[in-house]
Amino acid sequence: MPATPYDLVIRGGTVATADGTFVADVAVKGGTIAAVGAGLGAGTREIDATGKFVLPGGIDTHAHVEQLSAAGIVNADTWESATRSAAFGGNTTVVSFAAQHRGLDMMKVVDDYSALARKGAMIDYAFHLIVANPDQKTIEKDLPELIKAGHASIKVFMTYDLIKVDDEPLLDVLLTARQNGAMVCLHAENHGMISWMGKKLVAKGYTAPKYHSISHPRGSEAEAFTRLIALAELIDQPIMIFHVSTAEGAAVIREARGRGLKVFAETCPQYLFMTKHDLDKPGLEGAKWMCSPPPREKSDQDALWRALALGDLQTVTSDHAPYRFDATGKLAAGPNPNFKQIANGLPGLEVRLPLLFDAMVSKGRPEFDGRGLEAFVDLTATRPAAIYNLPNKGRIQPGFDADIAIWDPAKQVTITDENQHDLTGFTPFAGYKVTGWPVHVLLRGQDVVKGEALAGKPGSGQWLKRTGGPAAKPTGNLTLDMDPATNFGAKIL
Amino acid sequence: MPATPYDLVIRGGTVATADGTFVADVAVKGGTIAAVGAGLGAGTREIDATGKFVLPGGIDTHAHVEQLSAAGIVNADTWESATRSAAFGGNTTVVSFAAQHRGLDMMKVVDDYSALARKGAMIDYAFHLIVANPDQKTIEKDLPELIKAGHASIKVFMTYDLIKVDDEPLLDVLLTARQNGAMVCLHAENHGMISWMGKKLVAKGYTAPKYHSISHPRGSEAEAFTRLIALAELIDQPIMIFHVSTAEGAAVIREARGRGLKVFAETCPQYLFMTKHDLDKPGLEGAKWMCSPPPREKSDQDALWRALALGDLQTVTSDHAPYRFDATGKLAAGPNPNFKQIANGLPGLEVRLPLLFDAMVSKGRPEFDGRGLEAFVDLTATRPAAIYNLPNKGRIQPGFDADIAIWDPAKQVTITDENQHDLTGFTPFAGYKVTGWPVHVLLRGQDVVKGEALAGKPGSGQWLKRTGGPAAKPTGNLTLDMDPATNFGAKIL
Amino acid sequence: MPATPYDLVIRGGTVATADGTFVADVAVKGGTIAAVGAGLGAGTREIDATGKFVLPGGIDTHAHVEQLSAAGIVNADTWESATRSAAFGGNTTVVSFAAQHRGLDMMKVVDDYSALARKGAMIDYAFHLIVANPDQKTIEKDLPELIKAGHASIKVFMTYDLIKVDDEPLLDVLLTARQNGAMVCLHAENHGMISWMGKKLVAKGYTAPKYHSISHPRGSEAEAFTRLIALAELIDQPIMIFHVSTAEGAAVIREARGRGLKVFAETCPQYLFMTKHDLDKPGLEGAKWMCSPPPREKSDQDALWRALALGDLQTVTSDHAPYRFDATGKLAAGPNPNFKQIANGLPGLEVRLPLLFDAMVSKGRPEFDGRGLEAFVDLTATRPAAIYNLPNKGRIQPGFDADIAIWDPAKQVTITDENQHDLTGFTPFAGYKVTGWPVHVLLRGQDVVKGEALAGKPGSGQWLKRTGGPAAKPTGNLTLDMDPATNFGAKIL
Amino acid sequence: MPATPYDLVIRGGTVATADGTFVADVAVKGGTIAAVGAGLGAGTREIDATGKFVLPGGIDTHAHVEQLSAAGIVNADTWESATRSAAFGGNTTVVSFAAQHRGLDMMKVVDDYSALARKGAMIDYAFHLIVANPDQKTIEKDLPELIKAGHASIKVFMTYDLIKVDDEPLLDVLLTARQNGAMVCLHAENHGMISWMGKKLVAKGYTAPKYHSISHPRGSEAEAFTRLIALAELIDQPIMIFHVSTAEGAAVIREARGRGLKVFAETCPQYLFMTKHDLDKPGLEGAKWMCSPPPREKSDQDALWRALALGDLQTVTSDHAPYRFDATGKLAAGPNPNFKQIANGLPGLEVRLPLLFDAMVSKGRPEFDGRGLEAFVDLTATRPAAIYNLPNKGRIQPGFDADIAIWDPAKQVTITDENQHDLTGFTPFAGYKVTGWPVHVLLRGQDVVKGEALAGKPGSGQWLKRTGGPAAKPTGNLTLDMDPATNFGAKIL
Repeated sequence: MPATPYDLVIRGGTVATADGTFVADVAVKGGTIAAVGAGLGAGTREIDATGKFVLPGGIDTHAHVEQLSAAGIVNADTWESATRSAAFGGNTTVVSFAAQHRGLDMMKVVDDYSALARKGAMIDYAFHLIVANPDQKTIEKDLPELIKAGHASIKVFMTYDLIKVDDEPLLDVLLTARQNGAMVCLHAENHGMISWMGKKLVAKGYTAPKYHSISHPRGSEAEAFTRLIALAELIDQPIMIFHVSTAEGAAVIREARGRGLKVFAETCPQYLFMTKHDLDKPGLEGAKWMCSPPPREKSDQDALWRALALGDLQTVTSDHAPYRFDATGKLAAGPNPNFKQIANGLPGLEVRLPLLFDAMVSKGRPEFDGRGLEAFVDLTATRPAAIYNLPNKGRIQPGFDADIAIWDPAKQVTITDENQHDLTGFTPFAGYKVTGWPVHVLLRGQDVVKGEALAGKPGSGQWLKRTGGPAAKPTGNLTLDMDPATNFGAKIL
Repeated sequence: MPATPYDLVIRGGTVATADGTFVADVAVKGGTIAAVGAGLGAGTREIDATGKFVLPGGIDTHAHVEQLSAAGIVNADTWESATRSAAFGGNTTVVSFAAQHRGLDMMKVVDDYSALARKGAMIDYAFHLIVANPDQKTIEKDLPELIKAGHASIKVFMTYDLIKVDDEPLLDVLLTARQNGAMVCLHAENHGMISWMGKKLVAKGYTAPKYHSISHPRGSEAEAFTRLIALAELIDQPIMIFHVSTAEGAAVIREARGRGLKVFAETCPQYLFMTKHDLDKPGLEGAKWMCSPPPREKSDQDALWRALALGDLQTVTSDHAPYRFDATGKLAAGPNPNFKQIANGLPGLEVRLPLLFDAMVSKGRPEFDGRGLEAFVDLTATRPAAIYNLPNKGRIQPGFDADIAIWDPAKQVTITDENQHDLTGFTPFAGYKVTGWPVHVLLRGQDVVKGEALAGKPGSGQWLKRTGGPAAKPTGNLTLDMDPATNFGAKIL
Repeated sequence: MPATPYDLVIRGGTVATADGTFVADVAVKGGTIAAVGAGLGAGTREIDATGKFVLPGGIDTHAHVEQLSAAGIVNADTWESATRSAAFGGNTTVVSFAAQHRGLDMMKVVDDYSALARKGAMIDYAFHLIVANPDQKTIEKDLPELIKAGHASIKVFMTYDLIKVDDEPLLDVLLTARQNGAMVCLHAENHGMISWMGKKLVAKGYTAPKYHSISHPRGSEAEAFTRLIALAELIDQPIMIFHVSTAEGAAVIREARGRGLKVFAETCPQYLFMTKHDLDKPGLEGAKWMCSPPPREKSDQDALWRALALGDLQTVTSDHAPYRFDATGKLAAGPNPNFKQIANGLPGLEVRLPLLFDAMVSKGRPEFDGRGLEAFVDLTATRPAAIYNLPNKGRIQPGFDADIAIWDPAKQVTITDENQHDLTGFTPFAGYKVTGWPVHVLLRGQDVVKGEALAGKPGSGQWLKRTGGPAAKPTGNLTLDMDPATNFGAKIL
Repeated sequence: MPATPYDLVIRGGTVATADGTFVADVAVKGGTIAAVGAGLGAGTREIDATGKFVLPGGIDTHAHVEQLSAAGIVNADTWESATRSAAFGGNTTVVSFAAQHRGLDMMKVVDDYSALARKGAMIDYAFHLIVANPDQKTIEKDLPELIKAGHASIKVFMTYDLIKVDDEPLLDVLLTARQNGAMVCLHAENHGMISWMGKKLVAKGYTAPKYHSISHPRGSEAEAFTRLIALAELIDQPIMIFHVSTAEGAAVIREARGRGLKVFAETCPQYLFMTKHDLDKPGLEGAKWMCSPPPREKSDQDALWRALALGDLQTVTSDHAPYRFDATGKLAAGPNPNFKQIANGLPGLEVRLPLLFDAMVSKGRPEFDGRGLEAFVDLTATRPAAIYNLPNKGRIQPGFDADIAIWDPAKQVTITDENQHDLTGFTPFAGYKVTGWPVHVLLRGQDVVKGEALAGKPGSGQWLKRTGGPAAKPTGNLTLDMDPATNFGAKIL
């Protein structure tokens, strides 16, 4: 029984969880949600949320922040600008990357990225460890140590010349993840196809940005997923497949999950809202819509929405990769680059949630069968928090962090290059009109964004120490095929 | 802000929802959950739930209560005994049947069953309308009227000589369901195979109960599912497939759902815990384990658990069908019946939840990946309430009915014929030792069962008026193939 | 070494077998092919085939000849006119039907049909036994006797009110076929869907012939195939699925064959060359294109061609069903029938081979990869002879019957109603221009057709006594699931 | 009409083609089959084949002859010994390899191998061009020239450190094959898995030959097939997948063929008759059973037999790779090697046909449904000749080369190390008792083997100039995704 008042009560809003929607007060004490219900006791501070939606703050588990690309192109965003932008878009947690390049020491990489984040972040954060140098020290010493220290997810690229990891060292990464309890995330495309196609196209003079979209043959995705799943099945290691773009890719995932494999997957707004035709712009303009994999067809969008509704994909992230459309970013290779010389990536931290809210809640995508709001909460907060084991994040639930986004479901906004709060300078979603916008965002009970005003401060975001959690646990159905009965007693794990 | 105390506060229990588990108080006012949180204000009555699990009361959406079989065999249970038994097993809602036989008037059938339930039920209830007489009046007048009145689900048998509905009239049922907004539930097995096999077996002298299990060839299930789904797809009508028993059946459902069809499905404890070998008992004893479809193999159990974890099946029901092992029930045809003369069906209302809790929570079935408790709540309360659109049922959530089962997760019980509260006289699960038992059950805030004592009263259960809800809504992807562009302008819906 | 000259030598033609094509002489002695090779010895008679193709005479294993439909509509053709027409189209063998209707005695049916054929046939022939009255005498006495007598194939309809056989009696037919060594052929469509759709359409006033095409929902085919295969798998009985019309149907067959089941299948020219749009003609004209199942879409045609090339389908038959477009046939129900009152069926004995030759050989369908001529021989002669075990038929091979069609590959013909030799009075392929035509047809070494002239005589065709042969043999992988180890010792076969 | 007698007549044998079996004389003139039939005219030479089988000489399209492995291990066989051995086993044609290693010039490689074969071969032969150095000269100049010169097939290894070709250069090979009309054959296994597993096993001390079998995880095959098919589909280039060993691998091929892709495949006796348990021998003895991929399980054997019967696999080759069990071969790395240091490969040219004949004809594998002899001829002679476009090879057909093996179907032989005619010194099939043996082998009408006696001479074999033929032709369904409508006009082929 509350001897003292709550620190904060958000009154009368429509609360949505991954599971249900109801009108209730939400009470906060000590940065934590204390109670949810009708007619809760008084709060030192009260917010009237009548007619608003009270949702868990968004969690974006795939964003590149203040990261140097392997090719040396700098992100436009700092931790300050990126998390500011994220907060204006309704987010309270972001998982970014500590990116090892070839030759770099993993421990130092994590130290460096941690220092940047600590200084700039105004929402909570964690890191995926990008491994591009899977040498013995990285595999056997650094990754175990870092996972133990709370960095329980690794990312590997199966393509990109400068950072790709081949099948054999990927097995090393999967095994060390399994032995130390981490999730492994992958950019999975067939490197050979993409490289080959890119060279052929450029050689024939097809250099405009739009040709990027066909330089990644759609079959390169399903192929890489199939191979990756075979590798992960050998080790019995859970994986998270990043940015699914094709119907065939989603089908491969569904098949694997049906066999009981722990295969998780995400997609991004660029694959749900854009097509390859968006790249077909005069001159270099199409570069603003260039990302990898590229947007595909309308039929792929439909397949991805269905895959989200079926649970085959479990989250939608931004894959925020903010390269400016100038000589510091997309055009770093000179004023007249071919598409292979243009950095791939789009900003997205700020618009991810409004785009999804508009589609799922305001417009009511039919795949979600009248439960678009609950699905929105699930895909953007609850499920990613569960998969990556972000402690006490992602739910309006007693005991959880009071990370809350209050949405005005009726607010109409036209997205423009100008109304973004990051430093990219453009958004490929400029011109989209959306209904529904986060109007008040709180991190552990404190305002970060209130209406048009920024309330958060650089450095107020906290690093989230994570163990691998249930999602990262092997299934126990080891197919490494080493059991005594059939394999002559060999045991290599 | 609570001017007055809550009617009831359940203090300090571990609350589980379909989505998460946390320690909190649960406050009730006016039969409704008012708030969930830490340190809630005082209640007129308080229950200490420290160390206990506070879960939504179970919802069993497939139970035969006080029903006359088409062959004239009476259920052993009355509404009083059945709901008493259900309550002792942690349930607060049951969906039973108003069973039309050939020649019966649907309206009168509903009146009759409603009168029985009104008098006896001590937990809340609803009816599925069994249609065995799909004549014009039933299809065009009675079903629309009854659906509109709040009976928004229909059941059809695709087998059993006396009540089966063939493909053509089944299309009529599906269409009227679509036009009036009801779910259609089915007992789906291939009638011809079963009838043919039964006759062959009996003719060759294979008459013992165990032969029942092989008289339903496993292929009869997947066949019927496939056919049923083709019929439902033609009409674009959502369906609920009852009591899935085989791996192949579950695979057919997964495939259909992957194509975006609204196919829901359940299984039952008999298919998750028993095999055909349970029927292999001396004399007629095996009759106690006879149900249709019959229990299958261990590998089917595993496939069904996986299907539950994947969401391909959404609920586990009892299919309670209480025929006594005596001349009023199983042995009604005489003292020495062949298996075709023995009524199919098992009691299960009371043991369903403890069996599942033991497997999913106490023993931790690996398919649920550390989330067995949440899955238990989802499969036995939240999801069935959503699919059948039971208003304000199935969740510990502000505004929902205070239907609550407090479980002692450490209580160990050995199931016996004697400790059951129904009138069947036996349970096929006798001898099972389970950990975890519901020790206090409340319906709309009022005690129904408290420890070993019954607190509920016949007639205190309420009928739940239901519309079809989102689950029963067509997908909109009509394959009835009647669009002008391709079908010469024909429009038959 | 030939002491005496051959009876006949066909010199210098291009001989094609299912396996290869080569220039050679073909020598005949005693009605049988004696030798194939270069520079064979003299023949009493010699035919110069230089520049011509020397192929096995066509075998059409699905044609309705002088048959009374269950509804009482008479075929326009007699055995004389039908086999005359067949011979002009390059055929030397036809398998027709002895059609039991409800209430008819199977033995008498066979006697009656045999008498008609004996009198009129001018090419060789056999019968499939249509079973529409699967009573005990038919199943246990007549079919075994008739199979033993040399009628080793049975046909069953799964649809059509007057003759359909339900799942349970179909199992009886399958079992008796298995026990006596016969192939079982099926018209497999879901009866309920077709009946229901037909009634709905007519009730709404959609009565024109074109609506016939949508009254057979495409899903009705795959459904029936799946069910049929499940029934046949239970019994482990080989089946031949007649007239596949949809891509989905072909896919079901491929899947079953991949599992090792003995599922054979045919399609017909109407599904390879026509679409549903052919029925869309003014007035009742569309009735000429009405057959069951109806022609489908262009994409189905492509799928069927591929299925033929892959061996999933093994033969192309005519399904010749010659109803005149007048009051004796299509319009027997009156001058203004709705589509349900119009007899289904098309003539096709004469045009089947030229249509296929034109597509596969002259135009070179790409699916056959440069081997269209060999595939043509295989699909229209060699394979059907093997599947139905027609003795010494279907090959240009020493020891085989000298049933030979000499084709002029350059002859161009426009098909018209007038140039047909049957009695139907029209052909749905009128207006088709084809290249390649049989210009000389020999049956057991004797001329039947020579150029434009008929040389055969009624009664000169012989009945072919057949055992079931290898194709009709069970796989031995009995899934009737009765082995002692798993089924408590029950043995019902 | 034969003015002169035939050169040779084989009288009264049972002739088998891929399509049928019949008793006939076979007449030969000028090295070519002149006629097939009863009572053919006299021959200058006559052979009585009464009671014998007259079959096309075997064609083994996968054998390593007088080849230096990339690791420097020499084949035990010379062209003389290898083709002698092949002839004793009933073969008249072999396709071996001209093996480019890294750094070697393709033109010189072909010259060198050609010189060896020209000198030693006593049966006809051709080469697959192994490409391990896919540099610009090889791809753009040498391969086009060599294909044009009559070497219309290429082989690529996807594994083995010293010769493997990665995805990107493999696309180059596929494209040059497409543009010049050649088949591409592949050793397809996932290199990373195999390398990783081998290192792990050896590091843990699992060094015996039997561990080889588990160092190639079974998933490494299906993965590589899937990837390879995706690459070939991108280019629309037909491929031949070598030595399929797993059920899953066969399933991948079936799926691809079902989509209309031109994917051909072979298996070998080691996968049809051996399992991994054959490697489990004391000491190093198991090395005699080491090949790559390794033999798998009994269930895989069954799946491969079915795949052969279904046409999913089209030929059975020996993959003859004769490494002696001594310091020149298997034990070249020293007296105590670990399994990674032992050369992979088995002899098989001589036993391939007798093993298959025994299984398919004498024992009658059920998959072939009474047509085992025809299937034997098809799989070992007719189909490989067609796929590789070997001119006038593989059939008993007028105009074809008189390459004939006369088999005694009753002859019983026990295979031993001693009765082999190659130089390997052992056979892994020692101890197998087979029924049926080739007792007289003729090449273009001349004796090569007669009973136990060798009649052929080194150098009498001829090189077979081949174009790609129909099998190597693209499908025309280019998925390189470059059509103007969807790909912005890019055309890279």
